[in-house]
Amino acid sequence: MSQSALLNQLVDALRCLPGVGPKSAQRMAFHVLENDREGALRLASTLEDAVSRIGRCQRCRTFSESPLCQTCSDPNRDQTTICVVESPIDVAAVEQATGFRGTYFVLMGRLSPLDGIGPEELALDQLTARLKAEPVKELIIATNLSVEGEATAQYLSQLARSCGVSASRIAHGVPLGGELEYTDASTLAHAFAGRRVVEH
Amino acid sequence: MSQSALLNQLVDALRCLPGVGPKSAQRMAFHVLENDREGALRLASTLEDAVSRIGRCQRCRTFSESPLCQTCSDPNRDQTTICVVESPIDVAAVEQATGFRGTYFVLMGRLSPLDGIGPEELALDQLTARLKAEPVKELIIATNLSVEGEATAQYLSQLARSCGVSASRIAHGVPLGGELEYTDASTLAHAFAGRRVVEH
Repeated sequence: MSQSALLNQLVDALRCLPGVGPKSAQRMAFHVLENDREGALRLASTLEDAVSRIGRCQRCRTFSESPLCQTCSDPNRDQTTICVVESPIDVAAVEQATGFRGTYFVLMGRLSPLDGIGPEELALDQLTARLKAEPVKELIIATNLSVEGEATAQYLSQLARSCGVSASRIAHGVPLGGELEYTDASTLAHAFAGRRVVEH
Repeated sequence: MSQSALLNQLVDALRCLPGVGPKSAQRMAFHVLENDREGALRLASTLEDAVSRIGRCQRCRTFSESPLCQTCSDPNRDQTTICVVESPIDVAAVEQATGFRGTYFVLMGRLSPLDGIGPEELALDQLTARLKAEPVKELIIATNLSVEGEATAQYLSQLARSCGVSASRIAHGVPLGGELEYTDASTLAHAFAGRRVVEH
């Protein structure tokens, strides 16, 4: 196609964003050049800033600009409850949806021996040290409900038990507003297996 | 939400891209930080490069790094046919979909007196000069089928006539694969009004 080479490069570069295919990348490139060059420059400098300055929290491993993230350095957060998640975006999801006031531990992945991801890669020694040294009461396991996520949850609950800490797993089942008819088989099986006694 | 301020800035900055709402901006920000920091840096520098180096072609007004775009400087393109479009992305669409081998003129908008957009803003004097000075045979009007796009098409066809150049309008009607039942009323009305005699 006879189009500016730099424009093609921009379309390509935009495809590093998730969910952006060739068509939407093209639309984005033309849109910013035509209507929002200022926004494009701001995006460019914020991207550079973010990549150079956002590292990981020393304590919970989520994204943070400072050695300790805001949650870990907040004295009002309950340090005796730790929620374990796979990735920093899960922290954001829990923060936005729940009233959770404890702290986090971000695995940055899940156990997957086939891909060479074992306990060391997930810094589980760091989590173990916290469970042993601090007065932790509960480890809430919020890994995803995939095969690896479940295996990781299993491993984590054994780890907690060996440190004398009680472990819990977030509930999996039919989502709010979901109808049995349209719920996939494994979710429904999970919901049945995880049924709870109704208290009177 | 207790999240790095810089991360929030990145989520905001990503929203300059069309079709990116708060949820997808968040997903993009976490994704690039977690999996593709290199891609993010490349995107940042390409954005800066593109904004500073991509201007407009002197002849057809589409995006170009050089004074003349590739189409205008290509001796194999037919200079006697000019296709008029509203925006550079329309040039890309025509180039990708059709075998058009003529040249373009990009209005960078459409006539819209209420918004203060008249013939001067669309550089129609530049188009007029081309129609008068060059041996142009046909002006293909490919503005959109909106009220303003139609008014612009009307104006352009009169302009062409006054310069002794024949004008044509691209066809509007039922799209390929479209079914009459699901075609909106104005498109169907257009298709009827624009019906053509079947040659035997």
